[in-house]
Amino acid sequence: MTPDEQAIRTLIATWMEATKAGDLDRALEMMDDEVVFLGAGRPPMRGKRSFAEASRAMERGGRFDGSVIVEEVGVFGDWAYCWNQIAVTITPDAGEPTRLAGPAMAILRKKPDGRWVIFRDANMLTPAS
Amino acid sequence: MTPDEQAIRTLIATWMEATKAGDLDRALEMMDDEVVFLGAGRPPMRGKRSFAEASRAMERGGRFDGSVIVEEVGVFGDWAYCWNQIAVTITPDAGEPTRLAGPAMAILRKKPDGRWVIFRDANMLTPAS
Repeated sequence: MTPDEQAIRTLIATWMEATKAGDLDRALEMMDDEVVFLGAGRPPMRGKRSFAEASRAMERGGRFDGSVIVEEVGVFGDWAYCWNQIAVTITPDAGEPTRLAGPAMAILRKKPDGRWVIFRDANMLTPAS
Repeated sequence: MTPDEQAIRTLIATWMEATKAGDLDRALEMMDDEVVFLGAGRPPMRGKRSFAEASRAMERGGRFDGSVIVEEVGVFGDWAYCWNQIAVTITPDAGEPTRLAGPAMAILRKKPDGRWVIFRDANMLTPAS
């Protein structure tokens, strides 16, 4: 495994840990300023600020738990893609937990300082039993 | 626009035309042998053969119509990504049409002969009204 692939795998794992911990600042460090998040049934979410607003709204939805398996990483110079299998559970203070699962595919770029960040994200999570 | 970006935009448009025409052979020419299609609520579909089988099953589902808008193309040497907004309608011989809409994001690669092909595809289409 190349250092770049290892760095990207670590980024994905750290992203999940930051999300679980509700550490929004850490999550924001891991994405490009011009990031775009794509998903089913909603318009593209563009930029760090939109992500921050959506994350704060989601935090109020309950406690977040999850896991991620990196299925594939491809590195092409300063650009890369990866796809993962993700499972998450959101448990509200009152009521039943919501479980979502499915793949996600990301485009990543290497910043001039050598850090990899998420540039585009395609979210295919759907309610799971 | 670079020749590579133009070629990728033409590929996406041609893909939709081939799908509408039910021209499976043409669609298969536009993908890598080791293509992977990702979507919500189903396992990854790996390889041309799996795509061909799924397409033949879908053909029996009815007449297919659709449109695609290419939102962004990024080219990095012999690799590229693009994301698109897609809307499709499947009209069975009897019964109401099904409408699906949403984004899709693809990783493409340039073959040694200079042709671009689809390598990974993330489908985020969902029922639309």
